Amino acid sequence: MDRVGVDEFRQSGLAETRPITEEESVQLGEAIGRVSSREVRSHLPLPWFRRSAVDGYALRAADRAERLRVVDKVTAGRPTARRLGPGEAIEITTGAPMPEGADAVALVEESERSGDFVRVREAVEPGSHVSPVGEDIRPGQIILDRDQIVTPVAVAALASQGHQAVMVWRRPRVLIVSTGDELRPLGTPLAHGQVYDVNGAALEALVRAAGGIPVRGGVWEDRYEAVRAGMSALLDRDDWDILVTSGGTGASIPVFQGRDVRELHDLLPAVAAELGTLIHHGIRMSPGRPTALARLGQRPAFLLPGWPYAVLVHFEMLVEPAIRQAAHLPQGRRRAVAARLATSLSPMPGFTWVIQVRVSTDNDGTLWAEPLLPPPPPSASRVMTQMLEADGYIIVEAETDLPQGHPVTVWADPLRHREGKP
Amino acid sequence: MDRVGVDEFRQSGLAETRPITEEESVQLGEAIGRVSSREVRSHLPLPWFRRSAVDGYALRAADRAERLRVVDKVTAGRPTARRLGPGEAIEITTGAPMPEGADAVALVEESERSGDFVRVREAVEPGSHVSPVGEDIRPGQIILDRDQIVTPVAVAALASQGHQAVMVWRRPRVLIVSTGDELRPLGTPLAHGQVYDVNGAALEALVRAAGGIPVRGGVWEDRYEAVRAGMSALLDRDDWDILVTSGGTGASIPVFQGRDVRELHDLLPAVAAELGTLIHHGIRMSPGRPTALARLGQRPAFLLPGWPYAVLVHFEMLVEPAIRQAAHLPQGRRRAVAARLATSLSPMPGFTWVIQVRVSTDNDGTLWAEPLLPPPPPSASRVMTQMLEADGYIIVEAETDLPQGHPVTVWADPLRHREGKP
Repeated sequence: MDRVGVDEFRQSGLAETRPITEEESVQLGEAIGRVSSREVRSHLPLPWFRRSAVDGYALRAADRAERLRVVDKVTAGRPTARRLGPGEAIEITTGAPMPEGADAVALVEESERSGDFVRVREAVEPGSHVSPVGEDIRPGQIILDRDQIVTPVAVAALASQGHQAVMVWRRPRVLIVSTGDELRPLGTPLAHGQVYDVNGAALEALVRAAGGIPVRGGVWEDRYEAVRAGMSALLDRDDWDILVTSGGTGASIPVFQGRDVRELHDLLPAVAAELGTLIHHGIRMSPGRPTALARLGQRPAFLLPGWPYAVLVHFEMLVEPAIRQAAHLPQGRRRAVAARLATSLSPMPGFTWVIQVRVSTDNDGTLWAEPLLPPPPPSASRVMTQMLEADGYIIVEAETDLPQGHPVTVWADPLRHREGKP
Repeated sequence: MDRVGVDEFRQSGLAETRPITEEESVQLGEAIGRVSSREVRSHLPLPWFRRSAVDGYALRAADRAERLRVVDKVTAGRPTARRLGPGEAIEITTGAPMPEGADAVALVEESERSGDFVRVREAVEPGSHVSPVGEDIRPGQIILDRDQIVTPVAVAALASQGHQAVMVWRRPRVLIVSTGDELRPLGTPLAHGQVYDVNGAALEALVRAAGGIPVRGGVWEDRYEAVRAGMSALLDRDDWDILVTSGGTGASIPVFQGRDVRELHDLLPAVAAELGTLIHHGIRMSPGRPTALARLGQRPAFLLPGWPYAVLVHFEMLVEPAIRQAAHLPQGRRRAVAARLATSLSPMPGFTWVIQVRVSTDNDGTLWAEPLLPPPPPSASRVMTQMLEADGYIIVEAETDLPQGHPVTVWADPLRHREGKP
């Protein structure tokens, strides 16, 4: 199976991913960041009664009288039943309902009170300082679009209608499986050769940050029977929308080809092809060339390599777009910052090379991106420490060398971004 | 009390706000976005055993032999007890522990297997393709700083050490109180002149988005006794760190001055001065000049106006920095985008004017910010609809008119941001 480019892989992943169709109701105060599943129109105009926009005196503009008798007082929430007659005024506060018979308000700053009377310095026009019914929100106006992220402003608009809850799309459930005989759960002792399941924990965090609900599917042993049994069991479960695995995707394929699948240690794509449809296996991308995409029971399965840096990058470039599509979220959560290469760089022609960088600012305010490259073979590679040190990554798709100072875009972790620095 | 500038008010708010000192333990998969309360150092080197960085054959570099006898096989998680002798090789997979006696690995791609023997095409150096103990993470290395946001990478690093949980700062609890006789809880019927408590719901959402825990404190009536009783009761409660109120901050102060405080409808700052220390009352900012800052039982109280747009802007410019400081979060969560003014604008000299804008992009890719201004008095104002239409806001502190095309910074809602458009 030919390696495909990053864009083709990503588009295939999106094509395999259905937007979630189930809705749920969430309390207004907890709806922040969720995506509305229904258009909401106002049923209550705002304001729903004529109200004063200022502190002052409600009056009849037609009176054009300088001296009015103050016959009552209304404050917000405390209306009066009294109807305003000719030559009368009613003291009124901001937000209070206009008395019957009154059609304008004179500003308190432009009035002089004396006992039961008030002098209004200038005649007021009908409607002055009065908010008519529906001036802000008309009945039937759209206050929340379908597929809109619920923001604090949307919450305010929904609250103005008295809604206690809002209908949103259920979050996509992302099943996370790690593969490898060497993997042990966190918090347990390690025997020789064993390591902790780093990718399972990292994927749980990544899924949550991307807007999905992580569902932990445990660890599959690196044997054909174990992987086949594990993957078969998933087909019958309806508690996941997207599958993400790490490890076992096939670094050995060019070498072990011709052997029986049961002998392979990297066998997830092979089992996925048996139980579903293998759509892609191999991507022209570094890190992580052997990533695969499959369809399992009409649901997308992203089979990522086992190297933690590859898991991070492939998740962000391939899996997160699918999760966000399923969640009805817009694409493009990451922050992009313009910088310049701190060193020259020889690209990998034909490949998308994702390189972690550290960013520093010089005296001119220019951001410089210093590539964090693993040592070349036959040395082995530092991975976790470079990931901890990185401020973001650059995506290099050039065919020829990039000189020092070449402009690059640094993609930064949205959790870490601050103004001025990624 | 003199009106102060925005920066002075914000700095005073920060000075009154203690960073949270209580910690809590959260499960690793749920720690995303939280702030670590302790530096974490590695106790386990990574790798903690010598391991192969590739698929191939473990051997003794000193052998320099072309033909080696394959005596065993090790895979990740399945070590061998066999010690490698002279002229011997052991088949090995990526991540598997190096056998005793072996000091290098030959790539499978550069080896030819034939039965029990393997030919290695080129001699290998000692250490080739072997990850020594601690190559990636040394014992005692800092893998999580104190006051660092927990990112997916941090989760991966903690998981590599076997940690199931991480210590983080407790989130600040922000008590939210609305004032006004006209306010009714969501979901209840309205009598004439009553409206729903929009600000309470909006503040709950804003607090959550800012990293705080909202604590709803209900609604106080607009009477001196009610406000004094409500505020007094708060002094004895230890379930809040920051108080935010909306409404009742004093639009009427220049008018009603000289009257007894019991007659005022806008009386929160007055009661705060009685029960605590009033630090500021009035800010040179539009919207929302009458905002106040008080100290109540050694805790900060932000007394915001009642106008929803003022609540939104004052929260983001004054309260959110305090919440983030209390939460040990870095300042600067909002996304800034460069744009140009779509229309000329007459500023408010001496005031910080926060103006909501709609952003559009022309054919050249230039972003244009169109100010959304309320209609001038004596008309009343549309508020909610403008808030729903806005893409962000600009902050204008100029003394003279700004021409069309003038460069501005648009501050966008981080929940809504997408690449290319705020």
